[in-house]
Amino acid sequence: MNGAESLVRTLKAGGVDVCFTNPGTSEMHFVAALDRVDGVRCVLCLFEGVATGAADGYARMADKPASTLLHLGPGLGNGIANLHNAKKARSPMVNIVGEHATYHVQYDAPLTADIEGTARPYSHWVKTSKTAQGIAADTAEAILAARTAPGQIATLIAPADTTWEEGAGIVQTPAIPERAKVDESAIANAAKILKSGEKVVILLGDKAVRAAPLEAAARIAEKTGARILGETSNARMQRGAGRVALERVPYPVDQAVATLAGVQHLILIGSRDPVAFFAYPGKPSRIAPEGCLVHMLATPADDQPEALERLAEAVGATQKLVIAGRERPDLPKGALDPESIGAVIGALLPENVIVCDEGVTTGRKFFPLTHAAGPMDWLQLSGGAIGVGIPMATGAAVACPDRKVVSLQADGSGMYTVQGLWTQAREKLDVVTLIFSNRSYAILRGELANVGALNPGPKALDMLSLANPDINWVSLARGLGLEATRVETAEQLADVFKSALRAKGPHLIEVVM
Amino acid sequence: MNGAESLVRTLKAGGVDVCFTNPGTSEMHFVAALDRVDGVRCVLCLFEGVATGAADGYARMADKPASTLLHLGPGLGNGIANLHNAKKARSPMVNIVGEHATYHVQYDAPLTADIEGTARPYSHWVKTSKTAQGIAADTAEAILAARTAPGQIATLIAPADTTWEEGAGIVQTPAIPERAKVDESAIANAAKILKSGEKVVILLGDKAVRAAPLEAAARIAEKTGARILGETSNARMQRGAGRVALERVPYPVDQAVATLAGVQHLILIGSRDPVAFFAYPGKPSRIAPEGCLVHMLATPADDQPEALERLAEAVGATQKLVIAGRERPDLPKGALDPESIGAVIGALLPENVIVCDEGVTTGRKFFPLTHAAGPMDWLQLSGGAIGVGIPMATGAAVACPDRKVVSLQADGSGMYTVQGLWTQAREKLDVVTLIFSNRSYAILRGELANVGALNPGPKALDMLSLANPDINWVSLARGLGLEATRVETAEQLADVFKSALRAKGPHLIEVVM
Repeated sequence: MNGAESLVRTLKAGGVDVCFTNPGTSEMHFVAALDRVDGVRCVLCLFEGVATGAADGYARMADKPASTLLHLGPGLGNGIANLHNAKKARSPMVNIVGEHATYHVQYDAPLTADIEGTARPYSHWVKTSKTAQGIAADTAEAILAARTAPGQIATLIAPADTTWEEGAGIVQTPAIPERAKVDESAIANAAKILKSGEKVVILLGDKAVRAAPLEAAARIAEKTGARILGETSNARMQRGAGRVALERVPYPVDQAVATLAGVQHLILIGSRDPVAFFAYPGKPSRIAPEGCLVHMLATPADDQPEALERLAEAVGATQKLVIAGRERPDLPKGALDPESIGAVIGALLPENVIVCDEGVTTGRKFFPLTHAAGPMDWLQLSGGAIGVGIPMATGAAVACPDRKVVSLQADGSGMYTVQGLWTQAREKLDVVTLIFSNRSYAILRGELANVGALNPGPKALDMLSLANPDINWVSLARGLGLEATRVETAEQLADVFKSALRAKGPHLIEVVM
Repeated sequence: MNGAESLVRTLKAGGVDVCFTNPGTSEMHFVAALDRVDGVRCVLCLFEGVATGAADGYARMADKPASTLLHLGPGLGNGIANLHNAKKARSPMVNIVGEHATYHVQYDAPLTADIEGTARPYSHWVKTSKTAQGIAADTAEAILAARTAPGQIATLIAPADTTWEEGAGIVQTPAIPERAKVDESAIANAAKILKSGEKVVILLGDKAVRAAPLEAAARIAEKTGARILGETSNARMQRGAGRVALERVPYPVDQAVATLAGVQHLILIGSRDPVAFFAYPGKPSRIAPEGCLVHMLATPADDQPEALERLAEAVGATQKLVIAGRERPDLPKGALDPESIGAVIGALLPENVIVCDEGVTTGRKFFPLTHAAGPMDWLQLSGGAIGVGIPMATGAAVACPDRKVVSLQADGSGMYTVQGLWTQAREKLDVVTLIFSNRSYAILRGELANVGALNPGPKALDMLSLANPDINWVSLARGLGLEATRVETAEQLADVFKSALRAKGPHLIEVVM
C-alpha cells in the first residue's frame, strides 16, 4: 500500500474514523485511498473553517478525535480560527495537511508557505513526515498526541510524495496514558478549606461540568455551604431536567466581579483562575477579589470526576442528591426578543438534545429558561473566535446521528462559516438552526462604551451593523440546499420550531428580531 | 488625540485612506476614531478573508496599499489565505491587528493567541506596538515597509491600550525608496544574448506585464527574434485591443515544458524561473529545459519598465509597434461550455474593464477569446489559494469607482469567500460576477489522474463534487442583497450579461454548465 493508504488505515486502527475535509491536488492520494479502506467516513466541507469547527464539535460529543484533511498553508490558515476554538476547548484533533512533494518545496511554487509556522500557534504537536515509509508511524504519533489529556491539536504535514510512494503498512497507536489522579494531600487540603467555614467557591470547567461530576460537586456544596460555579464558556456541559443547574461566571466584567465578591477561596477543578475576556480601561483583568486564595485541585489534564468523588467522600457528601424538577416556561406570545425566544426554546427542546450555542448577545438569557427541558448537552464557543456554531453543530450531528442537534446562532458569527449549512444538507444531518437575525454585531455596541469609546458617530456605527442590505437567511439557506423558514412572532417560532424538531434533517429558521 | 486616532491620521497622511475591516472589541477605538478623521473610507466585510482579498485587489489597481483592521490571532488567521495570495502578487498592504491590552496578554484570556507567530509566515514586516505614544511611528514604519518595492505585507499589532491611551499625534511616513535601476552591464549582457541568434525567451512578470513595458518587450522580440512569454499567473496584466497579446506559460506541466522546449536562454524581467505548480510523479519541478541558461535581468523589486526601455534601445528596437486589430468573437448560440462562455465574454467586454479571473478550469480558454475586446486590466489568482476572486473584485471596484469590474468566478472557489457579495451590495460596487456553476472541483478530477491516483471510486469522486445538493447561486446572492440571474444558454448569457454591463451596481449571473 502507498503512504496515503498506510496513513488512512493507521487513522482507522487508532479509532479516528471520520475525516472533515476540503482537499486539493496534494491530498489526492489520501482521497483515493478512502475507496480502498472501509469504515472511514469522509465529509466534504466547502471551506476549511467548517472542517476544523466540525472536528471540534465531533470531538466534544464523541470524546475522541476526528481528522481533518487540509490543503497546504492557506488551507490550514482557513481553519485556524476554529483550531483556536478547539484548542481552548481541549478538543482532540488530528489535522493532516498536504504539502508539496519533499523535493518540490525548494522551488517556492505559488502555494508554498511555511506550514509548520502556520500550524504551531494553534497546535500542541506539529510534525512534517519525511518519507512514505515513516508516515504511518507519524500518524500513530499524531493520534497519541491528540488523545493525550487534556485533549490536544496534532498537526501532521504530509508531503505529496510521502503519500504516493510505497508505505510501510499500518502502525498501531500506542496505549493512551490514563489521566493523572489528584494527590491525596490536595484532596485533604481542599476538604479542610471546605470545612473551614470561610467563603469558598468551587469553580468547575472542562470534564467537571459533565452530569456525574457536577452532581458530586453539588453534593459537596450542599454539605459544606460552598458555592459551585461554572466557567463562562464550556466545551460541553451536561444539564437540563434531573441534572444540577450550574450558574456560570458572567461574561460582563462587572457582573463577574460581583459574582465572586467576598470569596476567600477558589477551588479549581478543570477550570482556570477566571480572567476578563477583554481588558477594559479601569477594570481588572483578574476576576477573583484581591486576597482570594486560588487552589488548583484538578487541572484539565487530571481525572476530574474521580477527584470530585474523592472530595465528596472526604467531606462526607456521599448521599446522592435529589434534584427538584422545574417547570418549563410557557409558550410566549407576540414580539421576538431574547426572553421570548429563550422561552420558546425552553418550552420545546426535546429530551437528549445537543445544543450548540453561538447565540452571543441574543443567547445570554437562554440558560435559565432552558434548564427545565430534558437532559441535554450544551456546547459553547470556547475560544471567542466567532464562526464555530454552524460547523460545531455539523460535527456534533456526525458524532451522534441518533440525537437532535439544535444550533443557536447569532447572525454576524453565522456568516463566518455559512458554508457549513451545505454540508448539513449533503449529509442530511439532523440539525435545526435558529438564526437570530438582529442585523448587527450587537455585542460591539456595548463594547464601544465599555472600552470608553463614547458617542460613536455614523461611520463607527456602520461598522457594527449588518443592515443595508439586510441578509435574507431563508434565501441564503435555500441556496445551500436547506429547508428554511422565516418567523417574526413568538407564535410563529413555536410552530415552526415544533415541526422542525419533529421532522428529520436540517432546517434553518430565521428568527427576525 | 488617543493612540487610535494618531494611527488613523498617520495612515491617511501616508496615503492609506481605505480600510477593509471586520473589527472586534479590541479595535473599537480605531473604529471610533474614523468619525473624527475625514477622508478615510472604511469598508465592512463579513469575514476577514474578504478584507484581505479586497485589500489585495485594491492594491493591484491603486498601486498603493489599503489597510485592513482585523481582530486578534483568529481574525488574522481568517485572512491568511488571501494574505498569501497578496504576498505572492507583491501587493502592498498594511494590516492592523488588534490585540489584548499589553498588561492583559499574560492572563491568557480565551482569544489570546500568538499573533506575531500567526502573521510572520504571511508578512514581510511584523511589529507589536508597545505604547500609545509610539503607535503612530510604528504605523509610519508599516506604511514604509508596505510601499517598499516590490510591495510588501506589513502587519502592525495594536494592543488595545496603545489605542485608548494618549497618543503622540501624526507621524509622517518617510520617503519611499525608488526602485533600483538595472546595471548597465546586465542590459548589455541581455542585449548580447538577444543578438546571439540563439533561442531566447524573455519571461515577463510583475510590473513588466503592464501596457508600456509589454510593448517595449514586444518591440525587442520583433527586432531580435526572441519570444516573449508571461508567467502563468499575473497580479495585473494590461491587455486587450491596441495592446500586445502575451502568451503565458501554461498551467499543465506537460504543456509548460513543451512551450519552453529547446529554449537556450531565459531572460527574466519581473518574473521567476518557472516551476510546476505542483509536483507530479515522474514530471519535472523546473519547467525550463536542462542546459537552458537563466538570466535575471530585473527582479520584481527593480524598475522593470525602465529596464525594458533601455534593453530596447540597446538592441535598436525603438520604433513604436503597430499592433494589428483583432476581431471579437461572434456571439455563440446554444449550450454553455468554456468556449461559448469565453466567446460571449470576449464579444461583450466593455472598454477599460477590470477583469478579476478566478475562473479556474472553466476560465482556461478565455484568454485568446477576450483579447480583441477593448483595453482592460486582467487580475489573476496569484498564490493558488482559492477564494480571492469575489474579494479581489470588491477591492478593485473600491479602487476604481469609475470602471466596470467583471468577476469571472468558479463555483468551488467562490464559496470560500462568498460573504464578499454582501459588501459589493452594501457599497453598491459596479461588479458583474459570472459564476461558472459546474458543481465540482473540476480541476481536481484531472489532478487525481496527474498524480497517479487512477480509477477513483465513489468516495473519492464525492469529495470533488459540489452536487447533492446543487448550490443555487441566485438564491444565495439574493440572500446577500444582490440582483442575480440564472442562465442556461449562450443566448441567455449574452442578454443578461449585456444588460448587467449597461446597468450600474452589483449583479451576479449564475452560468449553469
